[in-house]
Amino acid sequence: MIAASGAREILRRLHDVMASKAGAQAKLNQVVAVVAEQLTSEVASIYLLRDGVLELYATKGLAQDAVHVTKLALGQGLVGTIAASREPLNLAEAREHPDFAYRPETGEDIFHSFAGVPIVRREASVGVLCVQHREPRDYDDVEIEALQTVAMVLSELIAGAGLVDDAQVARARAQATGSVRLGGLKLVDGLARGVAVLHQPRVVVEHTVAEDVEVERARVYNAFIRMREQIDKMMGQAEFSAAGDHDEILETYKMFAYDEGWSRRINEAIDSGLTAEAAIQRVQQRTSARMRSIDDPYLRERLTDLDDLSNRLLRIVSGQLGTAAQLGLRTETILLARNLGPAELLEYDKRYLKGVVLEEGSLTAHVTIVARAMGIPVLGRVRDLRTTIADGDELLLDGGAGALFVRPSAQMLRSFEATSALKAKRQAEYAALRELPAETLDGTRMTLLMNAGLRDDAAALEQTNADGIGLFRTEFQFLVAATLPRRERQTALYRSILETAGDRPVTFRTVDIGGDKSVPYMREETEAEENPAMGWRAIRLALGRDGLMKVQARALLDAAAGRTLNIMFPMISEPWEFDAAKALVEEQRKWLERSGRPQPAKIRYGAMLEVPALAECLDVLFPKIDFLSIGTNDLTQFLFAADRANPMLADRYDWLSPAILRFLRRVVRAGDAAGIPITVCGEMGGRPLEALALAAIGVERLSVTPAAIGPLKAMFRSAKLAPLRAAMTEWLDAPGVDVRERLGGAVHAQGIICG
Amino acid sequence: MIAASGAREILRRLHDVMASKAGAQAKLNQVVAVVAEQLTSEVASIYLLRDGVLELYATKGLAQDAVHVTKLALGQGLVGTIAASREPLNLAEAREHPDFAYRPETGEDIFHSFAGVPIVRREASVGVLCVQHREPRDYDDVEIEALQTVAMVLSELIAGAGLVDDAQVARARAQATGSVRLGGLKLVDGLARGVAVLHQPRVVVEHTVAEDVEVERARVYNAFIRMREQIDKMMGQAEFSAAGDHDEILETYKMFAYDEGWSRRINEAIDSGLTAEAAIQRVQQRTSARMRSIDDPYLRERLTDLDDLSNRLLRIVSGQLGTAAQLGLRTETILLARNLGPAELLEYDKRYLKGVVLEEGSLTAHVTIVARAMGIPVLGRVRDLRTTIADGDELLLDGGAGALFVRPSAQMLRSFEATSALKAKRQAEYAALRELPAETLDGTRMTLLMNAGLRDDAAALEQTNADGIGLFRTEFQFLVAATLPRRERQTALYRSILETAGDRPVTFRTVDIGGDKSVPYMREETEAEENPAMGWRAIRLALGRDGLMKVQARALLDAAAGRTLNIMFPMISEPWEFDAAKALVEEQRKWLERSGRPQPAKIRYGAMLEVPALAECLDVLFPKIDFLSIGTNDLTQFLFAADRANPMLADRYDWLSPAILRFLRRVVRAGDAAGIPITVCGEMGGRPLEALALAAIGVERLSVTPAAIGPLKAMFRSAKLAPLRAAMTEWLDAPGVDVRERLGGAVHAQGIICG
Repeated sequence: MIAASGAREILRRLHDVMASKAGAQAKLNQVVAVVAEQLTSEVASIYLLRDGVLELYATKGLAQDAVHVTKLALGQGLVGTIAASREPLNLAEAREHPDFAYRPETGEDIFHSFAGVPIVRREASVGVLCVQHREPRDYDDVEIEALQTVAMVLSELIAGAGLVDDAQVARARAQATGSVRLGGLKLVDGLARGVAVLHQPRVVVEHTVAEDVEVERARVYNAFIRMREQIDKMMGQAEFSAAGDHDEILETYKMFAYDEGWSRRINEAIDSGLTAEAAIQRVQQRTSARMRSIDDPYLRERLTDLDDLSNRLLRIVSGQLGTAAQLGLRTETILLARNLGPAELLEYDKRYLKGVVLEEGSLTAHVTIVARAMGIPVLGRVRDLRTTIADGDELLLDGGAGALFVRPSAQMLRSFEATSALKAKRQAEYAALRELPAETLDGTRMTLLMNAGLRDDAAALEQTNADGIGLFRTEFQFLVAATLPRRERQTALYRSILETAGDRPVTFRTVDIGGDKSVPYMREETEAEENPAMGWRAIRLALGRDGLMKVQARALLDAAAGRTLNIMFPMISEPWEFDAAKALVEEQRKWLERSGRPQPAKIRYGAMLEVPALAECLDVLFPKIDFLSIGTNDLTQFLFAADRANPMLADRYDWLSPAILRFLRRVVRAGDAAGIPITVCGEMGGRPLEALALAAIGVERLSVTPAAIGPLKAMFRSAKLAPLRAAMTEWLDAPGVDVRERLGGAVHAQGIICG
Repeated sequence: MIAASGAREILRRLHDVMASKAGAQAKLNQVVAVVAEQLTSEVASIYLLRDGVLELYATKGLAQDAVHVTKLALGQGLVGTIAASREPLNLAEAREHPDFAYRPETGEDIFHSFAGVPIVRREASVGVLCVQHREPRDYDDVEIEALQTVAMVLSELIAGAGLVDDAQVARARAQATGSVRLGGLKLVDGLARGVAVLHQPRVVVEHTVAEDVEVERARVYNAFIRMREQIDKMMGQAEFSAAGDHDEILETYKMFAYDEGWSRRINEAIDSGLTAEAAIQRVQQRTSARMRSIDDPYLRERLTDLDDLSNRLLRIVSGQLGTAAQLGLRTETILLARNLGPAELLEYDKRYLKGVVLEEGSLTAHVTIVARAMGIPVLGRVRDLRTTIADGDELLLDGGAGALFVRPSAQMLRSFEATSALKAKRQAEYAALRELPAETLDGTRMTLLMNAGLRDDAAALEQTNADGIGLFRTEFQFLVAATLPRRERQTALYRSILETAGDRPVTFRTVDIGGDKSVPYMREETEAEENPAMGWRAIRLALGRDGLMKVQARALLDAAAGRTLNIMFPMISEPWEFDAAKALVEEQRKWLERSGRPQPAKIRYGAMLEVPALAECLDVLFPKIDFLSIGTNDLTQFLFAADRANPMLADRYDWLSPAILRFLRRVVRAGDAAGIPITVCGEMGGRPLEALALAAIGVERLSVTPAAIGPLKAMFRSAKLAPLRAAMTEWLDAPGVDVRERLGGAVHAQGIICG
């Protein structure tokens, strides 16, 4: 039995061992001697991983002839089991354990009890430390803890002595775990291949035994202060999504950060002789073990929070503060994180960032919105991500299938490559259509515009040869910033977009923030909303806080000086909201006029139709506006009262349902009669069959994601529209026709390239 | 300076004092002697509240002539300040404090430093304990804590000796705080007057000094185990609302409940000689003080959680487990709680329960829905509720104004009584119309039905003489239960309603649960929804879990045996959902038929129109249904994409906007053409002006809250409808007419009794 103060004595003696000039083997021999003496055990042994097997490297108490002779595969015997599971074993009667394997050369048959702990390096077992006693006895917690502390020191010793290197560690991990398929929630579709990079790199503790306890205490004390400051700051400005999750996590962080117990335990570990880093890690390991034994999903999640916070404290105390973005990507990468802010995403080198995998994440999180705009596949809600995958593991991400393949097998790789090749072939076919117009076989010229929101998006205009930008989402600049973007920055962005677009028209939508796109600097107004999609957002918020709208209006007017400015307002529900928004812009324009400053050659005002009620008042609205844009994403979710981000409802209501098509046809007909051009923007218009249906009810302008331009052009160039228009009229006028089925039939009959 | 072990010594000696047979004055004299000795202070004094002033009752060190002579009003001098603020004072130089008041008779001018703590009973200061030193010095935390511990014991001593009684305590509190107006969020409208009753009564600690430390430790240990069990159970079945708040609270409870630090601190307090109850309370006070000093809104909220949990632990350890409902109400009561489940609300005696005030609460919480049905006014989101109000305080609740008047002044009472009298007068006028039909002056007979959901609601049929129940919300039975109501219970409820209704028709709506009405036994499917109103609810959920729907169908068929069963399905978005729902009921009916069991004489099937998309497919729907009900609450929130529970949007869009009226008129006209009777149910129809507008577009059936029947009848009986119909057609056909203004004008011109 070892007293609590014994840990201090062991570390004091290990300190001397580590400081000595002896060779690695001599040090290992000294370590087993210290352990055996301090735990009053007849045997203490160290096994290390070498060429994929665990080899007895040092022992006190077993036959010395067995050293470097006795070898166990991973999973073989008690030692192999400890290494494979990375969990301690504590046995009063070792031979009763099913994995027990007797090695005669060691002479260990006379020992009954056995306790062993893994020696861990970069989340892989690289060895095992164990003790044995003659009499059958259980080892108590203090003894197991002492062994674990020694194992930490051994990890440092063997890495320092070059007895294990990173390549060996990686092999050990691959060997232990093999290929794994992890499922998740599809957030952004797409395929990606790359090596795993943790957004928050793990700190490898290099020095475990303290030179000066007071120095280590001061380091931890200062790190706690800095960590608390960081968390307070994060809570103030959280640039993450509006999803409640993240707030909750921050709040839990806060509780732990101010928890007396946690800092006390770390200080106790330092008092026993560990460095600040090692103490933090020991407490982390111990708390993890304790909480794992409580079988409760809520507490397990809090464990993840504490783990995050321990890592944060470790990074602060060790000065390893940067994210993987600051360290720089060196090869094609799939980024792993618990959660990620949009600004953090944008910090990564786009040439190498191929995919993102999150433990949390949601369809409406800002990072998802921005990644979708960037065309980077994202998988969310992947469990145990950071315990299953380590930095440098090879990954295949299939966003569409909602799957992540970790350390893929040859077969997984083949299947992935086949899919990629098919995709590349199609891309080449679309590229060949670049110079040709989106004209149907019977001569209807469709206007294909693209959606954009980031500065770099404008480059896609050239690449896709789209007819313009039909929807520039100005809120992206707001979402990725922690503070309100200043007017000059807004102007610069809008001007750069207009310059890149050249003669092609650009339609700017004023900010749609609030609701599910909350921004840190106006949280208090929106955070408590129970149904944020139907909340205080878009034009509602903009009219309520008109300073924001005025600044944006000025920025747009300045940027479009001498050109045509197309400006539209989101979420107009009643015509007076359009009037109020337009008046704000006009007020700015008049000020420019009065003060003789440059202003746009022309301003065209438009409204977004996303709220069903607005369709009832088109007679009032149309005389006021120059153009109308139908936002089908929001519109259809309100029409069906079905949140499009809700997985239970994602596929319940069809874009081609008569309800949607009849509603849209009524609006299009009214627009035609009033001479108001109508554009459909949103996901619906980007899908070939849906786009064809829209054309068949009279829509001639679509604004879609850049990747959809090619497929739509190919589709329209292979279609005759007139017969489809007639057929659609017939289908929609009759009750209960399955439009998807009929239209699919017509596509097949005409041989239209669709999908 | 007192050592940490000093607290133990003080309590050991106070134990002897408390156990002695001496009189109260003698005991007080002994206490000041013990305190002075243990804190090595020149002075220790006890002031007690008597007839509204603080009187020096005992002193060691001040002139004995001053005892029972020196008196200070609340707020006067340092002692009065401590009593008024209920906060300790700790001063190195007492006379520099602005509240310092010198009393020559005490001879205290030679003392520089001063520390004092309040003696608290039932959240009121009933005295002050203080010490003084000659030399200027700050008192350290351990000393202040020791004083606070002694003050707890003194509170027990003076209550036991009859030196203070409950009436005096209540007066002290009223004197200290006076009348207060607290604002909150209006959840259910209405006026109420009553005495404050805490749903979770506070435990008054009666014994503070332990007889046997081991016994107290065991009591706390067992209480912790029970508390953890309770919280695990609550998390499993939380019968509260779906609002995230409550989950978060439970999760925080859980963290505290398993927090090592908390139980350790309580055990330390027990080791120093306190009883389990006193130890819990001391730690609670200390933690409160510590957290108050951290100026952070999040941590302050966690403080409330810990406070709740401390109270729970206190109740468990002291065996005072019941809520106020179990103790029984004895007079007209306004109930105070942090939060409340609907089942908990129903446990109270309705004769005495006049209002509810919550610290949390939301418009969509189940308790709000049920209280609204019961006609009990509810005010939510009231801050510092339980710190401002104590059991027995007089309260006036004005739900409509969102205000609570605590210990109201005479003027507040007069104003309240005037409002009540006016309301009573109107009620009498409506009651006089009971036997008369709801017929307009030009002979249109409106059908006025009422909404119901609880068994007792049917009684209102008789009282209001409504034409029937137009909407029976079957989900209420589900919301108030912690487990799925068994079929027999459902049948019994439906049968009782039908029997009470007699010849009057009753329309049952199948369960609308999920979304914002989540129930504990199907949480996992719905809890993560970001926009629950547009989520997995109502018919969507019912068709997905058709076992639930089958049981309900059977219950309805059985209950309506031999009668007409009117059944309708909520949230129908596409006609196929109606088909699927009807098929489920028909399957049950056929089974009854085949097995020769009794079944309804007739079944009439209806759909709720709440989802805008359904209005596009009436041509498909109408041939399938016998009647249509328009649920204007949900419908208008989807039409305007505006959550009706969101305070930022509550008044943004008008019920009388042309968008709503045009939409409804289109549906009504289609219904008339198809011969389908249409009822409007929801808040809109219950407002006189809105009801008149509905009648003017052709609606002749309204189902409203029982309280609205009288006002509507009075309104219709004073109106000529034909001219309003013509005017409405004109207003709605023209663009941009302000219908509210025009209709208001017509009401005035006709002299219609409206509002």
